[in-house]
Parts: sequence; structure tokens; C-alpha cells
Amino acid sequence: MAFNSFGNLLQLTTFGESHGIAIGGVIDGFPAGMNVDFEAIQNELDRRKPGQSAIVTQRKEPDTVQFLSGIFEGVTTGASIGFQIQNTNQKSKDYSHNTNVYRPSHADYTYDKKYETRDYRGGGRTSARETANWVVAGALAKQLISHININAFTSSVGDIFIDKPYQDLDFTKTDSNIVRCPDEAIAEKMIAKIKDIKKQGDTIGGTITCVAQNVPVGLGEPIFHKLHAELGKAMLSINAVKGFEFGSGFCGAKMQGSEHNDVFTKDGKTETNLSGGIQGGISNGMDIYFRVAFKPVATIMQKQQTIDSDGNLTEIHGKGRHDPCVVPRAIPIVEALTALVLADFYLLDRTRRV
Amino acid sequence: MAFNSFGNLLQLTTFGESHGIAIGGVIDGFPAGMNVDFEAIQNELDRRKPGQSAIVTQRKEPDTVQFLSGIFEGVTTGASIGFQIQNTNQKSKDYSHNTNVYRPSHADYTYDKKYETRDYRGGGRTSARETANWVVAGALAKQLISHININAFTSSVGDIFIDKPYQDLDFTKTDSNIVRCPDEAIAEKMIAKIKDIKKQGDTIGGTITCVAQNVPVGLGEPIFHKLHAELGKAMLSINAVKGFEFGSGFCGAKMQGSEHNDVFTKDGKTETNLSGGIQGGISNGMDIYFRVAFKPVATIMQKQQTIDSDGNLTEIHGKGRHDPCVVPRAIPIVEALTALVLADFYLLDRTRRV
Amino acid sequence: MAFNSFGNLLQLTTFGESHGIAIGGVIDGFPAGMNVDFEAIQNELDRRKPGQSAIVTQRKEPDTVQFLSGIFEGVTTGASIGFQIQNTNQKSKDYSHNTNVYRPSHADYTYDKKYETRDYRGGGRTSARETANWVVAGALAKQLISHININAFTSSVGDIFIDKPYQDLDFTKTDSNIVRCPDEAIAEKMIAKIKDIKKQGDTIGGTITCVAQNVPVGLGEPIFHKLHAELGKAMLSINAVKGFEFGSGFCGAKMQGSEHNDVFTKDGKTETNLSGGIQGGISNGMDIYFRVAFKPVATIMQKQQTIDSDGNLTEIHGKGRHDPCVVPRAIPIVEALTALVLADFYLLDRTRRV
Amino acid sequence: MAFNSFGNLLQLTTFGESHGIAIGGVIDGFPAGMNVDFEAIQNELDRRKPGQSAIVTQRKEPDTVQFLSGIFEGVTTGASIGFQIQNTNQKSKDYSHNTNVYRPSHADYTYDKKYETRDYRGGGRTSARETANWVVAGALAKQLISHININAFTSSVGDIFIDKPYQDLDFTKTDSNIVRCPDEAIAEKMIAKIKDIKKQGDTIGGTITCVAQNVPVGLGEPIFHKLHAELGKAMLSINAVKGFEFGSGFCGAKMQGSEHNDVFTKDGKTETNLSGGIQGGISNGMDIYFRVAFKPVATIMQKQQTIDSDGNLTEIHGKGRHDPCVVPRAIPIVEALTALVLADFYLLDRTRRV
Repeated sequence: MAFNSFGNLLQLTTFGESHGIAIGGVIDGFPAGMNVDFEAIQNELDRRKPGQSAIVTQRKEPDTVQFLSGIFEGVTTGASIGFQIQNTNQKSKDYSHNTNVYRPSHADYTYDKKYETRDYRGGGRTSARETANWVVAGALAKQLISHININAFTSSVGDIFIDKPYQDLDFTKTDSNIVRCPDEAIAEKMIAKIKDIKKQGDTIGGTITCVAQNVPVGLGEPIFHKLHAELGKAMLSINAVKGFEFGSGFCGAKMQGSEHNDVFTKDGKTETNLSGGIQGGISNGMDIYFRVAFKPVATIMQKQQTIDSDGNLTEIHGKGRHDPCVVPRAIPIVEALTALVLADFYLLDRTRRV
Repeated sequence: MAFNSFGNLLQLTTFGESHGIAIGGVIDGFPAGMNVDFEAIQNELDRRKPGQSAIVTQRKEPDTVQFLSGIFEGVTTGASIGFQIQNTNQKSKDYSHNTNVYRPSHADYTYDKKYETRDYRGGGRTSARETANWVVAGALAKQLISHININAFTSSVGDIFIDKPYQDLDFTKTDSNIVRCPDEAIAEKMIAKIKDIKKQGDTIGGTITCVAQNVPVGLGEPIFHKLHAELGKAMLSINAVKGFEFGSGFCGAKMQGSEHNDVFTKDGKTETNLSGGIQGGISNGMDIYFRVAFKPVATIMQKQQTIDSDGNLTEIHGKGRHDPCVVPRAIPIVEALTALVLADFYLLDRTRRV
Repeated sequence: MAFNSFGNLLQLTTFGESHGIAIGGVIDGFPAGMNVDFEAIQNELDRRKPGQSAIVTQRKEPDTVQFLSGIFEGVTTGASIGFQIQNTNQKSKDYSHNTNVYRPSHADYTYDKKYETRDYRGGGRTSARETANWVVAGALAKQLISHININAFTSSVGDIFIDKPYQDLDFTKTDSNIVRCPDEAIAEKMIAKIKDIKKQGDTIGGTITCVAQNVPVGLGEPIFHKLHAELGKAMLSINAVKGFEFGSGFCGAKMQGSEHNDVFTKDGKTETNLSGGIQGGISNGMDIYFRVAFKPVATIMQKQQTIDSDGNLTEIHGKGRHDPCVVPRAIPIVEALTALVLADFYLLDRTRRV
Repeated sequence: MAFNSFGNLLQLTTFGESHGIAIGGVIDGFPAGMNVDFEAIQNELDRRKPGQSAIVTQRKEPDTVQFLSGIFEGVTTGASIGFQIQNTNQKSKDYSHNTNVYRPSHADYTYDKKYETRDYRGGGRTSARETANWVVAGALAKQLISHININAFTSSVGDIFIDKPYQDLDFTKTDSNIVRCPDEAIAEKMIAKIKDIKKQGDTIGGTITCVAQNVPVGLGEPIFHKLHAELGKAMLSINAVKGFEFGSGFCGAKMQGSEHNDVFTKDGKTETNLSGGIQGGISNGMDIYFRVAFKPVATIMQKQQTIDSDGNLTEIHGKGRHDPCVVPRAIPIVEALTALVLADFYLLDRTRRV
């Protein structure tokens, strides 16, 4: 029961604060014998890193991962995989004004009350910098289950939505634009929106849709480790996430059984897929798809009322370099956690029949 | 790493199929010294039990829980609490026609493929009968954290929604009507809707909203055991659930930071509560609220095309006694899991400061 | 992290007090598709049950296990296996004199101090009756790894020791005598010794040796789940156990490397086996053997000084029906836990290579 | 379920091979608010480090720990504590002759068979270098439970034993000699013995006794997390350990109940302490003491027959710088793991009463 661990058999345990020396983690249960594609891992980190485009934070962090163990001559050995990412560009003084002041809708207040002490520099342990660790582990997991295709993309920014079903999208276009929306016309509108919001010193929310294809039948473990429940928990662990739905989701709650049921075809597939590829917590071989809601980033470049740790009313004005919209950089994070969940269940499934 | 276990320090492990001898479980980590209110536990089971009204399944199951250990002379001893509920009214022959046929949008197909064997009677392990176990454990957890008020209610059936904020509702009215909606005018419409759907041999989805009040500041454990992530995982474990959102939820994804941030007041509370009582995965003392989407029950009293285990196309027609809408009976289940999550974090929090 | 759970992937969670309604448990992670030999399970329970011979407790408990789930038409389904054993012959009044008095070298005092409440009837949760649950789960595990032979036997009673290496013993003779020692001449001496001790109203300790043969190479998981460490933990969980050694054990601590090292032969086997079949925490294909020390049973039919819960000095005299020597009935317990550990690692090993 | 994790609520997860870049770990569940004494941690590492005296390996490793997170301005924050120790003095070429050859009584063969790949440099993951990680975590744990005194010492080397009960020893003398035996006359003999063995190019085994004093009543969690079972598992995780006994241990197996029982005195203490401070898996407030058997180090400076990975017979001759007796350097390791186990149960115990 570790608070900083994720996964069952394939388990990631992490450490690190945004302004400490380094962040990193230990991956346990990774099977031996896999040739590691290090470039692919760095590519995923680059998709997440700050400063990559005009619509994300302008911080410059190279985010280079260093593997410390568990990989020998390019091959996983079955030993735990230790890794770290140095923090090279932290500007702690950007946060010196926050020492004592609770930023609205951040975790400053709750951490202070819970732990009675707090690393106030850049959010400390609460910083989304932590998610770089997840991307490293997820990139390894992707290589383990390379037969499964995982594609996340930006499905909305504010009230600008993709209005096509995902089947009509070309996922190879996702990374062709800086907002990571495969519908290029919509992508332009999203980018314009974010630029406008940024100019206002404000931030905006959005949603990410993720599709996993070519998933074998049988992944997922009832009763309390249903595949969608683990995916939901994973997504709700990402900073700023407020909601998760899979298959028909909240729309399904308005429907009747006669229209919602997925009728089988002869080959064991289903005509429709409102189930979202999961029945009874176990993958059924159809596409798994789900949607994740992100609130707007809490740090805004505007003046806000707040209190300090003594309970005095005061004002705060965002400084530092922050994302106007978290969604474009969250795409690789969503994919990484999806890969970790699927890889975990993929290994577990080997033990479920005599 | 048990597939049938829920919780971290306070852990429920369950067993049982709908048509076996009994269902039950073991509660581990329950602290010693609590006087058990057995009547309160039975009351919660009665809220969940079949046959309680005209709009739920007409199966008759008394659902009487028998405690086998861990409670001595009415007081918890710190030993594991074993309990069981006999299955008294199973009509296995209702299911004999399903031996070989996969019910659409049920877990028959996925279980058969995963395990290569299956208890086909009434869904076996996949049956929502399992949730009676959760209600037992949740009722005990409620007593452990009796200072916290947990109220779930039906917030929509199909496209009939409560249109008031929860603050305007009187939770004491939730159980005054059979659909468990505290807005009595809306409740009547919902009941009429479900009766109509039932007459069609069809089923309908809905949503449940749950509010936890008087939660102390500091419950929840980052990074991978955030309070809302554990609540989300719990809710997504309930049969038929397709989505989870807390605080501003999916609406928050359309908002700007300047309107979404919850500004602090002098006492450490916030003026608004779009955060839903949780910041950085830790409770902040404001109301925790979330919403859960349930799909329509998959068993309908209509003819549907499907396949058998040999891949032959065939037809199926629902038999047995099923719920036209799962939401009214799911209210105590949502509350039970909420209580388990909060009680778990309540105990854990005792260990987080020197 | 459940206190009443044992195992990693194959996990047993138990409940029950000696004088409650029933004891039982839940087995999680047992693979689907195994034909269960129920008679073999009952046979193991019969080897452990009280009243089976003149040198064990004369309590009569039929100890019939009832499976409640997870097995359908004689085959495991992959669902959690619930089971229970009714307590039919508890004589709580035998213990009524103990309500308030701490039996020396029992857990009465520590439970009372830790939990501030206690089921004082027959030891409650601390009773070795719990081990019947382990025998049930172990008997199932034995069937899962039926290619591995597990043989435990009584290697000493008091200062009467088998003086042969285990290789010279015929394990088929273990159950041919009531003390379960495969050396029949020594067995007679042990039996005489126990009868004599019993006549004195006293009790005596002993050791059990266990040998696992035909174990595949590769079971065990470094760093903190070494095969011998898990076996040791398992054995130290048995009531009355005071020590564990494997391979050369404590004798190895007196030896030099040049005499202790096991030299390889061409086929990957070793000429000697002071390693006890485990190197670096992983089985090497040679016989695994270890020895477990049991203290004398604490309940004696003699007068002893003690205190009550108010701290008053008082006297206690054992009543009830107790074992003069725990070792003969502990043989199936040692085997059961060994089977559980090996079966757990057997399943885990399937996940350790790509 | 992580193979490289130790502990329940207070959990250490580690990584690292002896000849990689660094070893290190993550400590999870450490409570917030403790002032860290960094010097005390380094002192413990220095007690374990190679090259500290004439009777241990002459490798020079500074073993400086660097904390990467979880400690802010000298105080624990409740966040996970990441740390690492650089590998500065690895001489991989010392091991180049082992690439393909299985060292007798090492884990080369079992790792190769299990993982089908192996970091052969200096034992890789199987190296006792890993225990430096444990010393770091244990040193922090010691500070958390500073009211408990933990003293381990060398109780035998080969057949040279301390012949006094531990109560007659002065633990302040343990570190006054290089073999860490508090009986100075015996220490001299042990040192002479080890020097002689070293001269022969051989190695020798030994035992360590550990005493924990001032332990509060109530630590330990039945049924499967008994205090002595967790201590035993911890000790059996240390490289080269072959046995564990606590209290009367294997001697207890020869005794009668009337002589073995610990009679209570008025204050809840016991006249004798054959129980070793633990009854029913829970500390009773008396001294906890146990003994750990270490086999002789497997690497000897003598020629031995062995095989290579192709099954060819060959010879091997130890090179590199190895310990002739592992016991003196294992003292801080035994203490560290004892501290981790006790600190874990100390935190858990806060949750066991309402």
C-alpha cells in the first residue's frame, strides 16, 4: 500500500518535487528480455515537455531521462528499473512570493493542513512535473504491448469540440498541429482560442479522448480491478482532471436498453460499441475509448483574492511560466497511463487460467 | 494485489455468485472498539434489496447478513470481520436458457473468453448481487465515520433531470419516494417514466449524485491515491456505471480559470466550490460532490439477436425478474463505497504526521 | 495491505475465531479451469483435525469445509473462492474462567493491550483453529502444482531427533504412525515421550522438516520476495513457531566457504545442496528443504502464577482439551503453507519474461 | 505487489546493480514533520561501507547518500523520499571473466535461467550492495522511533561464540572493535579467526544477535503480519542468511511447557522472556531479541570446479575484493531492517482502535 505507487503487477513508484534536484521512479515487475527503444522514450518526453510551442508554458526543460538500473546492454533484465530526470531549469524565485500564500484552486492549502509543512516551490510534490515520470514508464509499457495501438487526441478546448466520431479521424494527424487535434480545421480554431485566452492572462479547460485498438479479449480483472475502473483511476490521477467516461458515458445514462445494447455479430464482435470495448470489466476485443475532462489551469496572470497561512486576506497575481491550456501537453500523459494499465493487465492475464 | 479486494488500510475482500450458496466477504483493518449498530446495517441492505417497490425487480431476497467473526458482544475486536448473506431465492432455471448464449452487453462473452469456463446462472460472479456485500461493509464504515454525512440521490432518469443545485434539496426526502429523488415533483415524473419503460419491456439509464458533508480537511493521499481518484475507481466498479465526474466535472472543461478558481475566504473556506471539496487529491473541508452515470440495464424483455458459444447466430429474450432502471437501488451502493473510501483515508491520515 | 491476507498473486484472506459461528476465507487469484479434488482437501483437513489419535487434543471437530463460490460444476472459474468451516464443538464454558485472566505465554495480554477488547473464548482470533483455513487453501494449491512433491515430517520431539539425512527416509511412512515421523523406530520413542509428557500435565516442543522436490528452476522474486524469505515468513506465521532455517541453516554459520559452496555438475545440478535448493532467492531445481522449530504448547494442566486484567496476582490451571505436542498436527499446516508459497511464485513466474 | 518493495505502510522500494550508475530507492509513507539528522544516516552507511577495516573487503566506496525529494529545509514533508548512492568505484573488469561462468553458491545460474538474461558484473541486482539502500531507509526509521533502542552485534564467527546472555553485555562496546562483538575477549578471537581464514583465501560464516529494547506493547498485526514473522522475513532477505530464530528459538523446541512459559509479574512484565518480547505476533513490552545465521561468503580465493552457460565444465578462481566474513558489515543492515519493521508497525498501530 504505497501512496506513490501505481499498478498491480507492473508497478511504478515515483518521487520528486518540481524544484528539487531530480524527479524519478522505480518500475517493478517489468519482464526481462525486452529490447528498449530509448529514442521512442525520449520522443514521448518531448511531446510532454514545456516550451515546445507557442500555446504551452515557455519554461525550458530538456527532460532527459537517465536509466540507472534494470536495463543491461539495451535489454530489460527483470530487475527493477530505476530512472531519473534532472530538474535543470527551476526558477524557485518565481515562487518565493507564494511561501505563505494559498493559490486558489491549488493544493497549497490542503497540503499545508494535512502535512503541517510544505515545499512551496512551484507546487512541490503536487506539480504536474511528476507526470514526466509517468511518461517514461508509459513509454516502456507501450513497447511491451506494441501490438496495441493507443491514440489520444484533443477532443475539445473550451466550447470548441470535434464534431466527428473518432472513426472518421486520422490519428496520424494528431501531432501535425500544436494543439494535437487530428481534425485540422477544428485544430486551428482551438489554437486561436488558446492564444486569445493566453493574451487575457487567463486559462481554459478541455477534453482528451483516447482510443486503444487491437486490444486482445480478456484484459481486466473483476470485481475491483475492472479495466475501465483502473483506467478511470489512472486518468483521475492526472492533475486538473475532473471527469472520466468510457463508451457511451454520460450520454448512456439517457438511453434505453433496446438502443444501448451492443448486438453480437457472428465473429464475436458487436454491431455497435456503446460498451466502449469493455464488458463486465474485461476487454471484449472492440475498440476501447474514453474521454477525460480537464479543468482550466488554476494559475492565471490576473489578480485574485486569497488568504495566507495566518488566515489574513491578501491578493495574489500569477507569475512564472504556465500553460494557458493543459490539454495539448497532457496527450502523452493520457497515453502513458493507458499503456501502463493495459500492460499490467496483459501480464496479469497470463496467470488467470491453469 | 487481490482482484476481489477494495481499499488500502480498511480492506474489503468478497466472494460469491448470484446463484451459489451464499455471498459474503472479509473486512480487514477495521479498528477495535466500535459498538456495532446491526439494525442500521440491515436498513442499508433493505434499501438495496430487490422487491422493495413497483419500479424495481420483483425478486424476493431477504438479504439478511450474518456476521461470523470480528465482533464480540456487539463490539468490533480488531480481528477480521467475516460475514455472509445466504442466497435464498435464486431461480436458476430462469437462466437455463442462457447456458450457451451470450446476452448482449453483459459479461457472458468476456468471461467465457477470459476464463474458458463460466458460472452462467444469473451472471454468476458478474451479478450486481455482489453489491450487497459492499453495502454491508459500507454500513460499518458509515458508523466509523459517523461525523461525516453522506447523501446520494437520483439526479436523473433518462432525460428527466433535477434542475436545482444540491444545496436547494432536502436530503431527508430522498427515501420518501421509491425513485429516491429528493425533489418530489421530479420524482413523480421519474417514477412515471420508469413504469412506462417497464411496460415496454425496456430499461433506462440515469445518474446518481452523491454529497459528502462535514469531511475533515486532509483526507486523501497523493500521488496515486487521490481522494477523487479512489472515489472514481469505486464508482466505476459498480455494475452499469459508464462515467464519473466531481466538482465542476465535464462542465469545468468548458470554463476559464478566472471563473473556475475557488477564491478563499478568511476561514479557509472557499466562496465557490467548483473543486468539489478536493484540491490536489486531498479534502479541503468543503462539500465533496460527484455524479455517476449508469447505463440502462442490459437485460430487456424484448427479442434480440445474439450468438452462442459456438458462434451461431440466435435470438434471446429476457426472462427472470430484472430492474427497469438500476438507479433507485444503486443509491445505497454509492453511499456505501463512498463511506469505505472516506473511512480508509480517515484511518490512513492518522499515520501521515510524526 | 491486509493483515489477514497471505500471498501475492495467489492470496488467501481469512476470518474466524475458535468459538464463533464459523471460520473461513477467500482465495483470490486462483486460476480458472482446474478440476477440484474435494476428497483430497478433506483428507488434508483430517490430518490436521483434533481427536485423531491418543497424542493430540481430544476435542472432536469434524472440520468439514463448505465451498461457497468460485467452483462451478467441480471446476475453478477464476472467481474468488469463498469457503467456511462451521465451529460445531466449541465448549466456551471451558474458557469462562479465563475471561479476565492472562494465560502465560499466550496472546491474551498483548491482544488486550493492543485492542482494548478481546474475544477470550479459546483464544478467539489467536487460536490455531485458524490454521484449518490454511490447510484448505494449501490443499487447493497442492492440486495446482501437483508436479511438485511436498513432504513434511516430524524431525524431533523434545531431544529425540531423527539422526538420518532426509534422503534416507521413506516419506510414504510419515502418516503410518501418529507422530508423523517416517523413521519408525524414532517415531515410537517420540510417541512414548509425548504420552509421558501428557501424563505429567505438561507439553513439549519439536521440529518439523519439510522437503519440496521437483520444483522447477526459477521460482522466487528478488529482492524482497525471495523464495526462502516467503517460506520463512509463512512458517513463522504458524502458532508456536520460534525459528526457521533452510539448507545448511544455523550449521552453515559455522562453516567455511570452501566446504559450504555447492559445486556445479554438468547438468546444472550441484554435487552438494547446502543451499537448500535456493540461490539468490530463486529455486535452482535441487530439493528445497527447511526446518521449523515449535515451542511447547503454552496451555499446561498444571497450576501457574499469573495476573488478571486489573493487575492482581492470581493462579491459573489449564482446562479444556489441548495438545501435549503440537508437531504431529502441524505437519499438514507446514505443507499447506509451502504449497501456497510455491503456487504463488509459480503463477508469478509466468509474468517475468516478455 | 512489488518485488522490490519492503514494508506495509512505511514502504521502501529500491533499484540498482552493483556496477550500474547508482543504486537508490523511494521511501513511501514516511510521516511529515520529522527533522532529519543527516549525519546519523551517513554514520550508519559508514558502518556498512567496504574498506573500513582489515577484516572486510578492501573495496573503497564512499557510499554517500543524496536525497532527491521528500525532505524540505531538513524536515520530512510527507512526500515520497527519493534517494541515491552513486557507484563510484566499480571495477567491472574484475568480473569480466565471469560473463559466462556460474559462480558456485551464487545466484548467477538461477538468474540466468529465470530471466534468460543477466547483468553479470559483480552480481548485478543480486549484489549485497543493495543493502546500502536498506541502511539509508533504516537510519531514517530509527529516527522516527528514536525511543526504541536497537542493538545488533556479532554473536559468533565460525565456532567462536559469545557465551554470555545478552543482558551481561555492554552494547556501547559493540563498535569499539572491528568485528562488532561487545565481548572484547571474544572479539579478539573472532578477529584472529577471520584474519586466518582470509589468509587461506577462504571465508567463514557467523551469527548476529539483535535486541530491541523499550518497544511499546502492541506492535504487530496478526494473522499474517506477526511481528516476528515480518522480522524473520526481513532478515531472510539479507544476502547469505540461512536461518532466523527469536526468543527461545530452536532451543525452545527441546523444552517443556512448564519450563518455557513466561510467568507474569504484577506490572504486566514476565519473569523470564523465552517469548522474546512477542506473544501472538504482538510485542508485549519485554525485550525483543532474535538471532540470524549467515553462511560463509561464496566467493573464495581458491580454485573451484563449475560450469559455464553452455554446460561445459570449467574452473573458477575468485578475484576482486571480497569479505572473508560478512557479519561485521551486516550489523547495521540487521539494525536497519529491524527499525523499518518496527517503524512500520508503530505507524500501523495508530489505526487499530477507534
